Amino acid sequence: MAATTDYEHDPKGQELTAPYLKLYTVDSPNGRKISIFLELLKKDYTLPFEINYRFLDFSTGEHKQPWYLDINPNGKIPTISEVDSEGSRTVLFETGAILQYLAFKYDTEKKYHYGPTDGKNFVDQLQWLTYVIASLDSCQFNFVFFSMFAPEKNPAVIEYFIDTSKRVYSVLDSRLKTNHGWLVGDKLNIADIAAFCWVRSGPRFGIDLTAYPDLDAWVQRIEKIDVVAKALEIK
Amino acid sequence: MAATTDYEHDPKGQELTAPYLKLYTVDSPNGRKISIFLELLKKDYTLPFEINYRFLDFSTGEHKQPWYLDINPNGKIPTISEVDSEGSRTVLFETGAILQYLAFKYDTEKKYHYGPTDGKNFVDQLQWLTYVIASLDSCQFNFVFFSMFAPEKNPAVIEYFIDTSKRVYSVLDSRLKTNHGWLVGDKLNIADIAAFCWVRSGPRFGIDLTAYPDLDAWVQRIEKIDVVAKALEIK
Repeated sequence: MAATTDYEHDPKGQELTAPYLKLYTVDSPNGRKISIFLELLKKDYTLPFEINYRFLDFSTGEHKQPWYLDINPNGKIPTISEVDSEGSRTVLFETGAILQYLAFKYDTEKKYHYGPTDGKNFVDQLQWLTYVIASLDSCQFNFVFFSMFAPEKNPAVIEYFIDTSKRVYSVLDSRLKTNHGWLVGDKLNIADIAAFCWVRSGPRFGIDLTAYPDLDAWVQRIEKIDVVAKALEIK
Repeated sequence: MAATTDYEHDPKGQELTAPYLKLYTVDSPNGRKISIFLELLKKDYTLPFEINYRFLDFSTGEHKQPWYLDINPNGKIPTISEVDSEGSRTVLFETGAILQYLAFKYDTEKKYHYGPTDGKNFVDQLQWLTYVIASLDSCQFNFVFFSMFAPEKNPAVIEYFIDTSKRVYSVLDSRLKTNHGWLVGDKLNIADIAAFCWVRSGPRFGIDLTAYPDLDAWVQRIEKIDVVAKALEIK
């Protein structure tokens, strides 16, 4: 297929040639979850698309522009726009949904996920991925918002979200202990990738990871994976 | 199999006969999502278990007792404990995970969900179910917490969560309009069930649903389903 300007009317969009997968992102935990997973997939598989990273500028409100709200009405990141060689496009937002979509479609050897035929591991993956999305993401996001961005700093509110975060870290720490090092099954999994990106930032939010020894060891183990370290640096 | 006391060491547990599915719940949106879905499944299928509803007493802290934390280390509801006729037990927490687990296992005719072979509808279900879990649940829960339970009432914080809720309601309202009445596909779906239980409570939180006409019509349509209305009354 011929080169085409991209399909999202992105005013800063490069000319792209289908098939491609464009990730709208920023340097944040949710954005990094997807770039890490894409780079892991790229290492292990011959993907049928080129990856294009598009870092949005939140300071100028690019994520609230009409062309972006057309593909992500929630006005957040990440969003993927995947165009296949026929020019057919799949647009998807929500980190947890994108992780599962990419896993089911491209992780054909199930190196980083469990599928519906995998019994207890699949059920555990549903549970822990949902837990990360529902509990970890929410309290960490709110902690960042109220401690850094809210016009009025309220110590009791900030304290509430840090306490909630610590409780969630404890739950994850216990799970890693009883499940021998991974949140799900016996390998780095989309649930682990989802949790890792927030937990590694814990110290920036005043959470001492040494209080959670299994979580601390798990962060260090994942950070040492070469592809993960490189994906965290993509600009 | 002979009658057995239940497996969770619940001090108020009844003697149950396997196969059974016990739902630990309270009268709250997340709890009601599961009871509605279970009752819909019971209407349409011959389920291989009896349903046992166990309403926890949060006022006495039952959800923080060691026997309960053993099955749900997060100390929230809902949790299911399913024991098959062989005595084999599956325990699962997180509303979004339970909805998908029950759908994939028991909604064999896909009356209320889409499966991995359903293409765009399955991807949409991943996206909208995740959106409800990540955005709607979180802002509504925090609104309730800060307006009703937090020791100190901070108007700016309450206002923030009500504004966020309204923005999320707008996104859902637009989606219902463009997708002709359902969040996913062309039928009541686990994503719709998940969103319905919070949105119907919107007026209690000061959100005027008439500002969201498609959402308002959708709430009324779902509330009129006989099984849904009955499930909302289970004590």
